Amino acid sequence: MKNKAITSRDVDFAQWYTDVVEAARLARYSNVKGCVIFEPNGCAIWERIEKELDKKFKETGHKNVKMPMFIPEGLMNKEKELVEGFSPEAAWVTMGGSKPLEEKLCVRPTSETLFSDYFSEVVRSYKDLPLKYNQWCSVVRWEKETRPFLRSREFFWQEGHTVHASEEEAVKETKDMLNVYKNFFEEYLAIPVLTGRKTEKEKFAGAEYTLTIEALMHNGVALQSGTSHYFGQKFSKAYDIKFLNKNNEWEYAYQTSWGVSNRMIGALIMVHGDDNGLVLPPKIAPIKVKIIPIGNDERILSLAKELESKLNANNISSEVDDSDKTPGFKFAEAEVNGIPVRVEIGQRDLENGFVTLVRRDTREKMTIGVNEDIIPVIKGLLEDIQNNLFNKAKERQEAMTYTAHSFDEIIDIINTHPGFVKTDWCGEEACELKLKDARGIKSRCILENEKEIDGVCPVCGKKSKCVIVWGIQY
Amino acid sequence: MKNKAITSRDVDFAQWYTDVVEAARLARYSNVKGCVIFEPNGCAIWERIEKELDKKFKETGHKNVKMPMFIPEGLMNKEKELVEGFSPEAAWVTMGGSKPLEEKLCVRPTSETLFSDYFSEVVRSYKDLPLKYNQWCSVVRWEKETRPFLRSREFFWQEGHTVHASEEEAVKETKDMLNVYKNFFEEYLAIPVLTGRKTEKEKFAGAEYTLTIEALMHNGVALQSGTSHYFGQKFSKAYDIKFLNKNNEWEYAYQTSWGVSNRMIGALIMVHGDDNGLVLPPKIAPIKVKIIPIGNDERILSLAKELESKLNANNISSEVDDSDKTPGFKFAEAEVNGIPVRVEIGQRDLENGFVTLVRRDTREKMTIGVNEDIIPVIKGLLEDIQNNLFNKAKERQEAMTYTAHSFDEIIDIINTHPGFVKTDWCGEEACELKLKDARGIKSRCILENEKEIDGVCPVCGKKSKCVIVWGIQY
Repeated sequence: MKNKAITSRDVDFAQWYTDVVEAARLARYSNVKGCVIFEPNGCAIWERIEKELDKKFKETGHKNVKMPMFIPEGLMNKEKELVEGFSPEAAWVTMGGSKPLEEKLCVRPTSETLFSDYFSEVVRSYKDLPLKYNQWCSVVRWEKETRPFLRSREFFWQEGHTVHASEEEAVKETKDMLNVYKNFFEEYLAIPVLTGRKTEKEKFAGAEYTLTIEALMHNGVALQSGTSHYFGQKFSKAYDIKFLNKNNEWEYAYQTSWGVSNRMIGALIMVHGDDNGLVLPPKIAPIKVKIIPIGNDERILSLAKELESKLNANNISSEVDDSDKTPGFKFAEAEVNGIPVRVEIGQRDLENGFVTLVRRDTREKMTIGVNEDIIPVIKGLLEDIQNNLFNKAKERQEAMTYTAHSFDEIIDIINTHPGFVKTDWCGEEACELKLKDARGIKSRCILENEKEIDGVCPVCGKKSKCVIVWGIQY
Repeated sequence: MKNKAITSRDVDFAQWYTDVVEAARLARYSNVKGCVIFEPNGCAIWERIEKELDKKFKETGHKNVKMPMFIPEGLMNKEKELVEGFSPEAAWVTMGGSKPLEEKLCVRPTSETLFSDYFSEVVRSYKDLPLKYNQWCSVVRWEKETRPFLRSREFFWQEGHTVHASEEEAVKETKDMLNVYKNFFEEYLAIPVLTGRKTEKEKFAGAEYTLTIEALMHNGVALQSGTSHYFGQKFSKAYDIKFLNKNNEWEYAYQTSWGVSNRMIGALIMVHGDDNGLVLPPKIAPIKVKIIPIGNDERILSLAKELESKLNANNISSEVDDSDKTPGFKFAEAEVNGIPVRVEIGQRDLENGFVTLVRRDTREKMTIGVNEDIIPVIKGLLEDIQNNLFNKAKERQEAMTYTAHSFDEIIDIINTHPGFVKTDWCGEEACELKLKDARGIKSRCILENEKEIDGVCPVCGKKSKCVIVWGIQY
């Protein structure tokens, strides 16, 4: 296992991405077509994400469950729009225990059907509601083109599924969970996001409407990063989820679902990464500080170990690299892996009474006296890195968000310096299709409470109904 | 959702088990044949198990990865014994994206093939070794008869897979991980286990040998609870995992794998449960203390909330039940869910200056003054419950472990008061088959360093080679 040179981000963004995934040992293609292996570094980031998000779901009253990974064909077919949306990319189990199955089983592409079937059995009264469930699992969609963390046939995600006694409560849940996602992206992943509603064309199959968070990658390509769906009574009517309301009348329940996936790891790479590899925001980094002793001096090694214990005892996850690689190799490895802070302890520095700290985001070096209390210094540094990453990403996102007034202007922006393009919109799918056909441009989201720009749709010239954001996407 | 009466354990053990699973809302059958849904209470126990075991795996130098859930047929077929062992219960994906697949994909029943394929690509030198990996996932085996947590077509587990540069190191890993399991069962689940080696007949398909931990359920039926396999070079030869050793020669690597599954939840039920439902050892209980305010007095409610915060702040996970159910219902619910300690706060007691504590294992009540420091009292009580559950289970296991000297005696014990039956054994499969045919008795494990009993095999009368334990099993 040897480090490979990383292509420059500005020379070939796609190759740079692939190189970072490989060099930081996040994932690699398996011999199962379209499926990747999460190697330890990638898996550790996913575990950090899972841990922090799970805490937020639990704080907001959600409980975890585990549904089966299979959906019988008959159950799948109950909700027409859903089955139409997902059947082109379904994987089917047709043989079990050497025999053909009586009913084929779909490997779940998403679990609305299973949750709805379950809810139909356990929900009886408004007293049973709300039920606010979530599951962490992998799902399968038979994609043709795949790319680690962004699109693969099997991917990891969480899917929340809730059922409520009123429209109002379900609508609030849909919005609340979008905000949980937004805050998580901004506070933990240091990635600013736009929030809004998907168009009818882009909404989830079977939803009344879909809310979304949209992030912008370093190359100006948009990434749909998390969605929260309001189902109203669509699934409850298809799956017969009824409850006795306070007036003792049977009423169909109101549902939501929401999910974020391992795309988040792709977003981390493409928002913060640079030509030296991954750059991880401290709040999500599995290892926040890497301590690198230079040379074999016992004093250096024991100081490194002491520092490691001290940092870990203060909830700053740290690791000494005492392998027999060269110091230069260790520095490069800590960099490529995106570890926020590196501490170098060398002979001469130690004799002069200090150690060196290197921050990953700016690669700035600083020294600190061995007798100084390092904990507040590291804490401050980590906070500073976290803020700096967010601010830089925010500035970039703002600089790459344009306002356009004509069809040609939209196309020109996308062709010359892609990003988010804000325009008025008439609300017609025809205009969406025209942009898609011209340059693969898709609507990202309809902004709420946004002042109209010119009052007319730049594509068709009709009166506008809302302000929308366009972009090219992963 | 309403509580259901629980069949008495002594009247009908199988029905009692089913009733406890349902009443404690651990799981329920889904409409996907042979698959269960983990409801919040069952899922929370699994999460506790996962969290504690994961910590132990990481402390012993293991890292988590995620392999694909599919195994192409060609890859599966490389190790002959493995494919023969698992193909009768394999589930096959034959269609993806509405088209027949060129090569069908097995939904993983276990992942030796995927790990070995990966190892063959990343292992080059002894410097790359050992690789000590683990994954948490679900696997699929097309079982005919299913029972929640004990046998289902999809189940949750962890599978460790390691690769080493020497036989000695791999042999040590096999043993070390068995000990991790044994200690976890005894210290966390409060379940005593026997440890030993599986016979050739009962070992894992493809292993050189299999070590096992065996637990005894309340009804005297054995449960194989965790296994650790030494593969030697079997898979490395089949999958071409070679490394340059210190002498600069190519050598096939040495491998292990080890796993425990959601059977552990079944074991918790069947070892500790009683006619009032589940009984959870405090170290694994998701909620350790349930606080039940009696009546709507504001003072009672605020005392309950205060106590909840105080306990949680001391790392004793606690919850107030302030629902509008009756106190009697709440008591029963806390009991059926197996919560170790229940705190009752009533009007009259409070006026007399105390609250009531009820421990789940013995159902004993005690009182404590409201001005006393409750933290050390609860801590002591939880420790006491943990020890008591282990000691009771240990005594029962010892009382149900018999020594037999003849074939008839083995059969008689199993027929009248089943448990573990220790005998000498000649080492021949014929004697295993004779016991299996007579009464479905299977060997549990060969004990190490055990003094011979009579020196002859009680089945065939030949000279014995070891001491073995027999039992009937789930």
